[in-house]
Amino acid sequence: MRAGDLAAPFPTVGLDTPALAAARLLAGQNLPGLIVLDANGRPKTILPGTQVLRMAVPQYCQDDPALARVVDEAGASDVLQDGLADRTVAEALPEQRRELAAVDRDATALEIAALMARTRTPVVAVVDDERRLVGAITLDALMDRLVQS
Amino acid sequence: MRAGDLAAPFPTVGLDTPALAAARLLAGQNLPGLIVLDANGRPKTILPGTQVLRMAVPQYCQDDPALARVVDEAGASDVLQDGLADRTVAEALPEQRRELAAVDRDATALEIAALMARTRTPVVAVVDDERRLVGAITLDALMDRLVQS
Repeated sequence: MRAGDLAAPFPTVGLDTPALAAARLLAGQNLPGLIVLDANGRPKTILPGTQVLRMAVPQYCQDDPALARVVDEAGASDVLQDGLADRTVAEALPEQRRELAAVDRDATALEIAALMARTRTPVVAVVDDERRLVGAITLDALMDRLVQS
Repeated sequence: MRAGDLAAPFPTVGLDTPALAAARLLAGQNLPGLIVLDANGRPKTILPGTQVLRMAVPQYCQDDPALARVVDEAGASDVLQDGLADRTVAEALPEQRRELAAVDRDATALEIAALMARTRTPVVAVVDDERRLVGAITLDALMDRLVQS
């Protein structure tokens, strides 16, 4: 088994993708983040889900949770969608971008595990010879292959 | 909607849980980590999946991916299971433990979002008045409530 066989489709966004669309991709998918592609379709970095929330939640709520306590669910939905409106994935990315772990299709399972361990990232991109995205491998999929009894 | 309504069952481990059992819990579940309970059943910290891999993958493979390239899948499985054998969750925890984000059952959706944003953690524990675990809320479940169209 090589990386090319384990690679599964993984949601991607571009730098110009609306932040709200990225948030909707994250909703209900149980993903550690989204792979961000550059203009040439090459994987560039990972957009962590928490980073989308950091953009969406007003700073005063992050500083003082008590202020968030008085807002009901409908209000919360409005606040978050307002926070994301007219903004893009590029604006949501952290200043210190997370290293995008990537391997070629021939990488072994242990190589992928070593890369996840070293970079502390639960998702590794698999790329072809021209660094275009083939798919991705998540930590749980890898664990499923390697440690299931 | 309050935290108590959104809280869902979430896999937990104890400090004495075998590391291999923790790895198997992570396999195929698409979770950002496991909630670690103390001896009194109170949530203590989060064990990130990548931390389990850091324990399982020999340091020489993390330092030099080329060494991992020659090991086949069966070999990789043996290496990882050997790395975890006879070790516990307590040993897998990082020295700098990740802050366990926790809220009470009355926390609002915006409060939970603010906490995830501030602590950069995609999972928040919901606890009762005695700080025992009621369940957990993941970022994707919260997004699902707040930003779905």
